[in-house]
Amino acid sequence: MTVFAPPVNRLITELSRLPGIGQRTAQRLAFHILRQPKDEALALADAIREVKETVGLCEVCFNLAVGPRCRICEDERREAGMICVVEEPSDVIPIERTNEYHGRYHVLGGALSPIDGVDPEDLRIGELVGRVAAGATREVVMATNATTTGEATALFIADALRERAPDVAVTRLASGLPVGADLEYADEMTLGRALRGRREL
Amino acid sequence: MTVFAPPVNRLITELSRLPGIGQRTAQRLAFHILRQPKDEALALADAIREVKETVGLCEVCFNLAVGPRCRICEDERREAGMICVVEEPSDVIPIERTNEYHGRYHVLGGALSPIDGVDPEDLRIGELVGRVAAGATREVVMATNATTTGEATALFIADALRERAPDVAVTRLASGLPVGADLEYADEMTLGRALRGRREL
Repeated sequence: MTVFAPPVNRLITELSRLPGIGQRTAQRLAFHILRQPKDEALALADAIREVKETVGLCEVCFNLAVGPRCRICEDERREAGMICVVEEPSDVIPIERTNEYHGRYHVLGGALSPIDGVDPEDLRIGELVGRVAAGATREVVMATNATTTGEATALFIADALRERAPDVAVTRLASGLPVGADLEYADEMTLGRALRGRREL
Repeated sequence: MTVFAPPVNRLITELSRLPGIGQRTAQRLAFHILRQPKDEALALADAIREVKETVGLCEVCFNLAVGPRCRICEDERREAGMICVVEEPSDVIPIERTNEYHGRYHVLGGALSPIDGVDPEDLRIGELVGRVAAGATREVVMATNATTTGEATALFIADALRERAPDVAVTRLASGLPVGADLEYADEMTLGRALRGRREL
């Protein structure tokens, strides 16, 4: 499009690289940024820059961290004997929101997917096994996604842990009906899991 | 949320200020930016900064411009006697895309809306009337939106032009059925306009 000035084009291109942002939305956002007062628009630019310059990964659990360790690893009140294994840093948030978990985390950085070229050495599995084998861990909760790749990753890690740290309990999040769900709308996979995992009332 | 590091929180806040971006989407975009290679994320930050530092408004028509005049005002091949009046710089694009218009533009910077405190002196109406009264203009096409405020703005400007430049034709975009539309789904306002604006075949 020759109607846009090159800097406007560049902004639209960069915005359209964000996930879920198509060409039209990118254009709409760009025009919004153009209309905004300069300091408001620059606040967004600065927030992006700041996040990339200050936020790294925790040296213990690979969660997001400002400095060498994340807030959870630095929090002495958290249970040191529990490690919850998740795929991505963003997965820590829903678990924290439950207020049901008070242990530590381990962020893998993805899930095993040989078809996409994600092999065990691409994830922080060695680091997890090392952490657990070093002792002090009582239980490892596998909280990878309930998808094929998440399940495969959980099974793979459970095997590795059973071999290297046989005394540590390895558990998996329960699968079943989402709270508030109608039976009528449940898919057969979920309902099957809910049946197999039924508990005494 | 205390789980997020402050820079992450700031980025989420800034992203959620964009139109149509809620808290959840802002969070998803922020985590995407965190995962991106540093240079890709900074390319977005730089594009925002560049746009705010280099893109201003054309001194003639108030369209977006790098430098004092926009590309359209600088293009000698464009018809100087035609001015198409639009509300926002983003409205220039759909008109250019039609390839039907080869004149100049005038960007008002909004539409009259006394209820929101937008009065004639808040828009670039004086500048338009001045431009037209200076001569050389043959026709002014009112291309404000087909909304109440857009219509009111078109009528107000038509009146002002008739007074100050009575020899200049003031026209309005046709209203009617969108191309490809089913009669069944047309609202009565649109269909009424299409009837009133019927043309001989």
